[in-house]
Amino acid sequence: MPRVSSDHLQARRRQILDGSRACFARHGYEGATVRRLEEATGLSRGAIFHHFKDKESLFLALAEDDAGRMADVVAEQGLVQVMRNLLEEPGTSEAPGADWLGTRLEVSRRLRTDTDFRQRWAQRSEQLTTATRERLKWQRGAGNLREDVDVDVLTSYLELFLEGLVSHLAMGLPADDLDPVLDLVEESVRRHRGR
Amino acid sequence: MPRVSSDHLQARRRQILDGSRACFARHGYEGATVRRLEEATGLSRGAIFHHFKDKESLFLALAEDDAGRMADVVAEQGLVQVMRNLLEEPGTSEAPGADWLGTRLEVSRRLRTDTDFRQRWAQRSEQLTTATRERLKWQRGAGNLREDVDVDVLTSYLELFLEGLVSHLAMGLPADDLDPVLDLVEESVRRHRGR
Repeated sequence: MPRVSSDHLQARRRQILDGSRACFARHGYEGATVRRLEEATGLSRGAIFHHFKDKESLFLALAEDDAGRMADVVAEQGLVQVMRNLLEEPGTSEAPGADWLGTRLEVSRRLRTDTDFRQRWAQRSEQLTTATRERLKWQRGAGNLREDVDVDVLTSYLELFLEGLVSHLAMGLPADDLDPVLDLVEESVRRHRGR
Repeated sequence: MPRVSSDHLQARRRQILDGSRACFARHGYEGATVRRLEEATGLSRGAIFHHFKDKESLFLALAEDDAGRMADVVAEQGLVQVMRNLLEEPGTSEAPGADWLGTRLEVSRRLRTDTDFRQRWAQRSEQLTTATRERLKWQRGAGNLREDVDVDVLTSYLELFLEGLVSHLAMGLPADDLDPVLDLVEESVRRHRGR
């Protein structure tokens, strides 16, 4: 039997994650049947579940992968930029940004309804909080952040606002006039003369 | 047949709304069966559906009633106070404030999944936005509001933040450290020297 390289395993894993992301976004967790996951990834169920124990594990890996990508954007550009990206591409499941929104919505929904999932997710969800906090600390060091409010408070503030935005988009409410609202959010954490 | 007074009708309607609110909050929309609604209100299904055409109409009346009560708080104390009340009583379905949260969550969930409901709800959901906007205009007139941001932008800002808070509580995430976050939200819309 030929030895399968680590690179090959990684590429296959990536193929499954990218294919199933669109599938979960379009059909939701329950609607993403094994048959649909096969179609979306171009792989057999045997191949898919060789890499991920079950559908739940695949979904968690996907959510974790998204959280990682989001944390990267946060580290470089901040959480408000993540929100701006959401506004630019909130629409259909065809748009790249929407896949991320789909996963995020599914996570929010399952957190509400599924206690087991809540526990499994808790270990993985710290990533975004940590990236946001680190970014804010760096901004404070650079003199860009307001000095009169604790970094943890600013982190919670931005995260709650992101959650509201996700919820708003999920309800299909209009988002074309929200840019000035995000300007206000951004300005609220920035340093100003006199404070 | 004795003539039924308008007061009596109103009182009966109130009895049904108050009883079913706790029932919807505890069991969700689907879980609030007719039998459970009978138990919760202390009335027969005949009596309940004499006042409300069907379960959907009852739920919409309830959501509308809640939106009205919330709009009253907004008119007198502002939307941030509504958020503070949520933090004070987010917990179990036994607590008074939690009934409102339960209805609100059910509305959010059905808005995501049910297009018909979305259309029926759209007509009723303007109430809170209007109350928030009026309150902010009044605050601006009194010189308490920042002058450099449009009232519509401030309204959207507060509403998105409320949605994020509702979502946060719905996911069962900790809420005991959010008071300073709400202080920041409140401060962001207030007037300050120099702007």
